[in-house]
Amino acid sequence: MLENIKSPADLKKLSAAETKALCAEIRGKLLDVVPLNGGHLASNLGVVELTVAIHSVFDSPKDRVIWDVGHQAYVHKMLTGRYAEIDGIRTYGGLSGFPKREESPHDSFGTGHASTSVSAALGLAAADAFAGKTNYTVVVAGDGAFTGGMIYEALNNAAEQDLRLIIVLNDNDMAIDRNVGGINRYITRLSTSARYLGFKYHLKKFFAAIPVIGRPLTVTARGIKNFIKRLVWRDNMFENLGLNYYGPIDGHNIKWLQGVFKDAMRDRKSSIIHVRTVKGKGYTPAEQQPEKYHGVPKGGVFKTDGGFSDVFGQIVADRAAKDARLCAVTAAMCDGTGLNAFKNSFPDRFFDVGIAEEHALTFCAGLAAGGMRPVFAVYSTFAQRCYDQLIHDAALQKLPLVLGLDRAGFVGEDGPTHHGLFDVGFMLQLPGSALYSPDSYADMEKAFAEAFDYSGVAAVRYPKGGEPAYDRSAFTDCGGMAYADFGQGHDVLTVTYGRLTAQCFKAAEQLAAEGTGVRLVRVLKLKPFDTETFLGLLGGAKLVYLAEEGVKSGGFAEYLAAFLAEAGCVPRCGVLIRAVDDKFVTHGQTEKLFEECGFTPAAMAAEISEKINGA
Amino acid sequence: MLENIKSPADLKKLSAAETKALCAEIRGKLLDVVPLNGGHLASNLGVVELTVAIHSVFDSPKDRVIWDVGHQAYVHKMLTGRYAEIDGIRTYGGLSGFPKREESPHDSFGTGHASTSVSAALGLAAADAFAGKTNYTVVVAGDGAFTGGMIYEALNNAAEQDLRLIIVLNDNDMAIDRNVGGINRYITRLSTSARYLGFKYHLKKFFAAIPVIGRPLTVTARGIKNFIKRLVWRDNMFENLGLNYYGPIDGHNIKWLQGVFKDAMRDRKSSIIHVRTVKGKGYTPAEQQPEKYHGVPKGGVFKTDGGFSDVFGQIVADRAAKDARLCAVTAAMCDGTGLNAFKNSFPDRFFDVGIAEEHALTFCAGLAAGGMRPVFAVYSTFAQRCYDQLIHDAALQKLPLVLGLDRAGFVGEDGPTHHGLFDVGFMLQLPGSALYSPDSYADMEKAFAEAFDYSGVAAVRYPKGGEPAYDRSAFTDCGGMAYADFGQGHDVLTVTYGRLTAQCFKAAEQLAAEGTGVRLVRVLKLKPFDTETFLGLLGGAKLVYLAEEGVKSGGFAEYLAAFLAEAGCVPRCGVLIRAVDDKFVTHGQTEKLFEECGFTPAAMAAEISEKINGA
Repeated sequence: MLENIKSPADLKKLSAAETKALCAEIRGKLLDVVPLNGGHLASNLGVVELTVAIHSVFDSPKDRVIWDVGHQAYVHKMLTGRYAEIDGIRTYGGLSGFPKREESPHDSFGTGHASTSVSAALGLAAADAFAGKTNYTVVVAGDGAFTGGMIYEALNNAAEQDLRLIIVLNDNDMAIDRNVGGINRYITRLSTSARYLGFKYHLKKFFAAIPVIGRPLTVTARGIKNFIKRLVWRDNMFENLGLNYYGPIDGHNIKWLQGVFKDAMRDRKSSIIHVRTVKGKGYTPAEQQPEKYHGVPKGGVFKTDGGFSDVFGQIVADRAAKDARLCAVTAAMCDGTGLNAFKNSFPDRFFDVGIAEEHALTFCAGLAAGGMRPVFAVYSTFAQRCYDQLIHDAALQKLPLVLGLDRAGFVGEDGPTHHGLFDVGFMLQLPGSALYSPDSYADMEKAFAEAFDYSGVAAVRYPKGGEPAYDRSAFTDCGGMAYADFGQGHDVLTVTYGRLTAQCFKAAEQLAAEGTGVRLVRVLKLKPFDTETFLGLLGGAKLVYLAEEGVKSGGFAEYLAAFLAEAGCVPRCGVLIRAVDDKFVTHGQTEKLFEECGFTPAAMAAEISEKINGA
Repeated sequence: MLENIKSPADLKKLSAAETKALCAEIRGKLLDVVPLNGGHLASNLGVVELTVAIHSVFDSPKDRVIWDVGHQAYVHKMLTGRYAEIDGIRTYGGLSGFPKREESPHDSFGTGHASTSVSAALGLAAADAFAGKTNYTVVVAGDGAFTGGMIYEALNNAAEQDLRLIIVLNDNDMAIDRNVGGINRYITRLSTSARYLGFKYHLKKFFAAIPVIGRPLTVTARGIKNFIKRLVWRDNMFENLGLNYYGPIDGHNIKWLQGVFKDAMRDRKSSIIHVRTVKGKGYTPAEQQPEKYHGVPKGGVFKTDGGFSDVFGQIVADRAAKDARLCAVTAAMCDGTGLNAFKNSFPDRFFDVGIAEEHALTFCAGLAAGGMRPVFAVYSTFAQRCYDQLIHDAALQKLPLVLGLDRAGFVGEDGPTHHGLFDVGFMLQLPGSALYSPDSYADMEKAFAEAFDYSGVAAVRYPKGGEPAYDRSAFTDCGGMAYADFGQGHDVLTVTYGRLTAQCFKAAEQLAAEGTGVRLVRVLKLKPFDTETFLGLLGGAKLVYLAEEGVKSGGFAEYLAAFLAEAGCVPRCGVLIRAVDDKFVTHGQTEKLFEECGFTPAAMAAEISEKINGA
């Protein structure tokens, strides 16, 4: 049946029984596809009925549908003309794992980071209103997104106008890790009144059914309805903000969902519809361990080796055992950042603050100002969210604070919303900070040992996965960097850091085989950079080749090229930078992305040869 | 009397009558000092009694007092041993206009940007709890700060533990501009129940006075109290988040404030104390026009020439008259960013979203996705707060969106929390964006004309104040840049942008007089940079001198130096960069800051001479 749903219009033709059968078919497809390419299983299983209900009532793309975070949009993609392509989701050249405007007019706004949806929806709704459209804007946001402050900034503006905004609060008591904090307890409290739902709902239906004859009676009937509504739908936080609140509703009952959507469509005010769903619904292992099945790795096999994240967790736990001031903070990413062991060993020094990176950073700054030694474990891409707090709350006050920047560089299948390509740029900007980029567990330990004793903000960045394999014994250590020589003399000085070292190593081997001598410098400490040692390594190189798995502008390579220009040390054939130059990089296997960006050993060896021989 | 208050301990010795007289004296001092050095008048007049009450009840610095935004901390400074220095506040070398940890142990946490206080307080409170301390952490945050999402992220965590956290919501219905949105209406609604305050308060006192004999009765008495409290302090948004709510309280009644603080100190839960104050209290002009008296210029005279901000406002309004898609967005800075005229002419296309830069940016992205052409007017320093949204919501989706980055470069007396030194760095990083830095109104018009038609994110940055004076007719325009020659030939190619052009102009005149030829390039379009034209201007320069009123790392100068290294065009004497190198810059007159950072014509001429002659 699913292959015949070419657009939401086809969905509207189905009977209730057919719709139910369709949901079963969607679940089956999710269980087939997700383990194939990796991706978000439990969250998509949880929104099958919700997505079907939305597309059966609303008229996408005229009505805008926006998915907060967006990893739960697979069902939406299947129902909006992309079923045929769903098998290739998250693969290079295939569908994105997140909504993407370029991909379909049904993806009204691209998402990836949490809590942006209502802001985007308000902008779209205002634009549509200017254009004289009378469409609806529907947002689906999980309860996790409600721990992010940005959504309150938006809700604060949502009551302003007649915007036809309908916000579905998808309450599954689960962000990526289990939710924390007052808002979640509050949402849970709202949910515990679920047994009243039928009563409330039918009461409302009853009043809605009162025949309305002439205007005065309309007002009266409305007045009664509102009075009753006040009684049963108690004054709550969302209503305090000027929104209508409906719920909680069973998010797996399509008929009820359709009913409440139609009710909300008649409201002039923006509405919050509180929907209860079960993450992983219909697949027992995922229902029982939704954290585990949040993201399913490619092939469906959970590895026991967590790579850099696990080593990080161990390093932090070891340090905490020796230093009672050390504490660890995460923004709803305890598992992903490898902090589970720490959490179990030091529960009183572990803080999960919700999806709230800004708060997390300033909270760390407060801990540091109070004499503690906080470590904030955060994905590089999400650290972008506390850029101002890093400057204004941490660095300006010279507070000692350690960042574990996980998922630095390409993250592969999650794509451009999640690649960690900006962190080197923004950390180099940060006055008084230190920055390390280990590519091995040994270097990671060394980096954190220094970072823990640093007097300001110290960040250690490391990629997704584990150590790349190459002959590390070829390197001579000289403090913040190490070098290895390939072939006779060195025509080329290649400088890189982190995971790209393995690629540059192979390129150097190839060049040496072709008769070009290469010295490869692997930098561990990017800032403060030991320029003296570096100049000592320069020797008689004709070319300095800088390779960086990050943005070119403001990155380490530009810093180093500028330094060489200032120091008057630019070699004869100049400087060549290979980095991500003023563009975003798509999703797909990291190897494919390396190819796309010219980071393969062959491509690097070729451009180096060309530069040397062309000069 | 004020000169005898050396610390809060002295305050505690005063009688009620003396305390009242002290408040009058403080007001007199504020009215003397603020017009002298410029600064925040109305907000400080509004918190005289509140500050006195806090320091008469709490024991700072053992108890931590944190001021959100911090511009209302002058009274706090007077009462914590800094009265003798208050005359020099905001001047170079004098007291900061904001709380600053280096300045006094009573400044528990430095602030400047809004909505950070509760996060910092939670960190400090947790650290103090680890240290076994039983002190209180007091936050004072205006209602404006409650439009920023970060404070909700923190409130969401505030109910977690027994942290002795007391949050004073200073409700004066006023951020810097009048507040907007649901939260403000809600706070106002809470306030309108102020007439019940006496009743509630005395009721609570009555129950507190019930003698407690033995544990069972305690529980019962507490139970009754809670029951009554539920009835009269109705279930509200803050209580929903797990906090105790007290209020609203008249914030100018010291006795009442003292009473409610003591009540809150007995709570185990974190508390919100809702205090009503009048901004500008005691000074009629400020009470009547609090927006105007929010920031008072040095000398106390309001200028009619708003400089770049006003010209910006006019440019946007002119464009809006021709383009019905254009709309303007501000984060509570309508007046400061010069949008008043636009607001009056195009009220339906004007959006003030509150102190919510993250939301503002993604809201703009939503407007752009819906076909509108949004312009976000924001101070450079506050734009740091939407770094992730710029990347993830705007640039990644290639949405056309214009930023007016006001207060770029040094802002003078507001100091390091407010200098706009990072924007060039983060805008250059942003893939696919355009960046302009006009130093004249004519160039500003040219820049915006291009920015309005740009297909992605385009930012125009401009300094506080107006056009610097120098002979602009000396320049030859060549598109995205212009140049002027000084003396014979050119030994030096000086490249700069924005306001520093005037300084570099004078340095070039001096060098030419000393016999060194200079070509001065004033760059308008920093990105995409026209490298071809630039190389054409290089000529036979021995030295390229790059001057930048911004951070060195990741700035334009480094970009250009790296480009020269890559292009193989580094001249004989190399490249010399003069920028803000890995440090924060203090507060004071911009001229002083120029001196401190080596941006005076004499210093620049001297280092150029030295480099050329030393090479």
